[in-house]
Amino acid sequence: MLNETKNLSVGDAQAQVLRHVSPGESEEIQLEQALGRVLAEVVRANRDQPPFDVSAMDGFAVRSADLVAGGAVLTVVEDIRAGDMPGKTVQSGQCARIMTGAPLPPGADAVIRVEDTQALTDDCVEITVPVKAGNDIRVRGENMRNGDVVLEAGTEITPGVIGVLATVKRARLQVYRRPRVAILSTGDELEALVAPFDASKIPESNSYALMAQLQALGIEPVRLGIARDKPDELARFLKQGLDYDVLLVSGGTSVGVHDHVRPTLADLGVTMHFWRVEMRPGHPVAFGTRGKSLVFCLPGNPVSSMVCFEQFVVPAVRRMMGHPNLFRRSVAARLTHPVKHRPGRAEFIRVTLAQDAAGGLLATSTGSQSSGDLTSMARADGLLVVSEGSDGLAGGDMAQVQLLDGSAFQGGSGLVEEKS
Amino acid sequence: MLNETKNLSVGDAQAQVLRHVSPGESEEIQLEQALGRVLAEVVRANRDQPPFDVSAMDGFAVRSADLVAGGAVLTVVEDIRAGDMPGKTVQSGQCARIMTGAPLPPGADAVIRVEDTQALTDDCVEITVPVKAGNDIRVRGENMRNGDVVLEAGTEITPGVIGVLATVKRARLQVYRRPRVAILSTGDELEALVAPFDASKIPESNSYALMAQLQALGIEPVRLGIARDKPDELARFLKQGLDYDVLLVSGGTSVGVHDHVRPTLADLGVTMHFWRVEMRPGHPVAFGTRGKSLVFCLPGNPVSSMVCFEQFVVPAVRRMMGHPNLFRRSVAARLTHPVKHRPGRAEFIRVTLAQDAAGGLLATSTGSQSSGDLTSMARADGLLVVSEGSDGLAGGDMAQVQLLDGSAFQGGSGLVEEKS
Repeated sequence: MLNETKNLSVGDAQAQVLRHVSPGESEEIQLEQALGRVLAEVVRANRDQPPFDVSAMDGFAVRSADLVAGGAVLTVVEDIRAGDMPGKTVQSGQCARIMTGAPLPPGADAVIRVEDTQALTDDCVEITVPVKAGNDIRVRGENMRNGDVVLEAGTEITPGVIGVLATVKRARLQVYRRPRVAILSTGDELEALVAPFDASKIPESNSYALMAQLQALGIEPVRLGIARDKPDELARFLKQGLDYDVLLVSGGTSVGVHDHVRPTLADLGVTMHFWRVEMRPGHPVAFGTRGKSLVFCLPGNPVSSMVCFEQFVVPAVRRMMGHPNLFRRSVAARLTHPVKHRPGRAEFIRVTLAQDAAGGLLATSTGSQSSGDLTSMARADGLLVVSEGSDGLAGGDMAQVQLLDGSAFQGGSGLVEEKS
Repeated sequence: MLNETKNLSVGDAQAQVLRHVSPGESEEIQLEQALGRVLAEVVRANRDQPPFDVSAMDGFAVRSADLVAGGAVLTVVEDIRAGDMPGKTVQSGQCARIMTGAPLPPGADAVIRVEDTQALTDDCVEITVPVKAGNDIRVRGENMRNGDVVLEAGTEITPGVIGVLATVKRARLQVYRRPRVAILSTGDELEALVAPFDASKIPESNSYALMAQLQALGIEPVRLGIARDKPDELARFLKQGLDYDVLLVSGGTSVGVHDHVRPTLADLGVTMHFWRVEMRPGHPVAFGTRGKSLVFCLPGNPVSSMVCFEQFVVPAVRRMMGHPNLFRRSVAARLTHPVKHRPGRAEFIRVTLAQDAAGGLLATSTGSQSSGDLTSMARADGLLVVSEGSDGLAGGDMAQVQLLDGSAFQGGSGLVEEKS
């Protein structure tokens, strides 16, 4: 019972997890609720955009032939605003005052921006530059043509995608549904957040950190509570959790004699695929399935729990939501200090990131890498990956850093400095 | 009226905006709603953590002196689970079976993990290695000491911070409140999402893209609707919008004779600080204030609108929410092609990112950089910054790329490949 044979690499364990996961069904939602979801349908343009040749500038619609000499004084025959339809044809020696987005009038073949003109009177303007036909005109259908595919199924809905969906007037759309996720904490030593203070207990924090990790993925999980180390109570909780698409069990990854999670899951019909992964923190982490339901048993150490969530739960949940990109973005960063490592397990080191003078990234350990020290996780911008075969890294070495939630913003814009 | 003198650089314009912004008041919220907010109070530990010396492993609590010979056969006098209190003192020749997180019993000074032992009978175990005092013990207060500051005011609440807050049993906390934001679209040419299809109109999409950009910052804005180009209607809408902390006016940045936004804002008591910024896309972008309310007039072109939001509204709104990091993270990336540029305006080029063999980032233009082509914004991972003084970039040059929403994840983990 204490022997474990399946010690997998992180990559192999991720592959095992993903073999059991596919995108869920689709559902129809409102555009206002669509950010972060994934399209489960192909979206086509319902019109030409722009609907006719329009001005790209505020200025004057002209006949380019009138300006071959390098400019001219023209008579303004009409004002055309965005939303107007032109009423007149521009003849030789004439022009129309035109606003950005307004339709080009017949006869005109170019737009001169207002900065390159000099108003003489209300209906007379001096153009001071020549112009080519087509200048500052956006032609009909330039951005999209009626019937063209503008968004493929499987597209993540970003703000830009929301804009495209509004452009083709999609107030409702089909997206992959989000998995329903339950979190169960286990352990006699745990004190619930709302329970009275007891100095001898360990405050139960993992379910809240996991909740927040899920919220950051756009999922509102259900926290089932704390199962004490009694077989009946544990079985009742686990049974309830298996009704969800994903069950996260916090704690209960031990191989000690007191651990009931594994046999109870087996009794409930769960097939376990692995119980150990060659990684630090997070060595004892387990994954099982029952039908389409996934079960992850995460370590009780707060940091191990969060790191295992990042490596295994994030890609699984994102695939269920239909995302093509499953893994945290990694960036290359230069270590500011050496990192000791013996080959065997991949290691995830909590680091902060800073920019060097050349715009590259510098990675520095948050200090304590104790798997119990959650404050170091709270300070980290990312997880620096030391591969399982590494003999250690020297200061100045480049390494890959997985960017964590909260690292999407930085202190400076990088724009002011360019001027100095 | 057509002359504008205040043509600012992007950095100077950002500095102007930020001079008028400070963090808002604080409010008390529940831990479950706290992700992405910013702490408006100092948080201290309410206990030692761990509360006593505990085992870091599943294994046996031993006296290190018993194992100086390189191992020993010991009698198991007790089982100690996490949540138990030890009942016996470990004497010479004895040990206690102990679980991760369980308190170390009196007499023991080290833990041997179960993998380095051999169970002989239920109450007899062979230890096969020597051990140093303190081995695999997490000492009382190692992670936090009662009364210590564990989180400073101004800390962004990430999942790790949520975990720390739960550890110190903070079910409620003080955070900076989110600004209330209104979005107003302007223009006769616009067709509302819910309006019947009219091929001659331009679908109103900017307010939805801006809504989503705000949602990505954790803010649920109010969309006021479309103000047509009538002075009375515009004034009524703008007056309503000025009741919010931030008003975004989409369109109405033109300098043409038909534009009523600027004089109407002046009539309503708004002081404008700039109307033009030397940038592309987004040249006409305006910023004003009335009391503590901010007004941004964003270009009507969909891409210009989004890019100006990124450069000016993002840092303003994040400062109002108390965030220390105001700007999108920039990463260095290598251009896969040349970029033409004449000195004058900073340019923001929509790019996709890919990883090269060495783990560095490659940036490639999405193609059309027309400010009307929102589909290219939908495809972009980031905005590559070409500084205002640049003469252009060559293929292979390094440049900074601001990472956009939706770029936080990538296709591969980067972990499987390491093994090949």
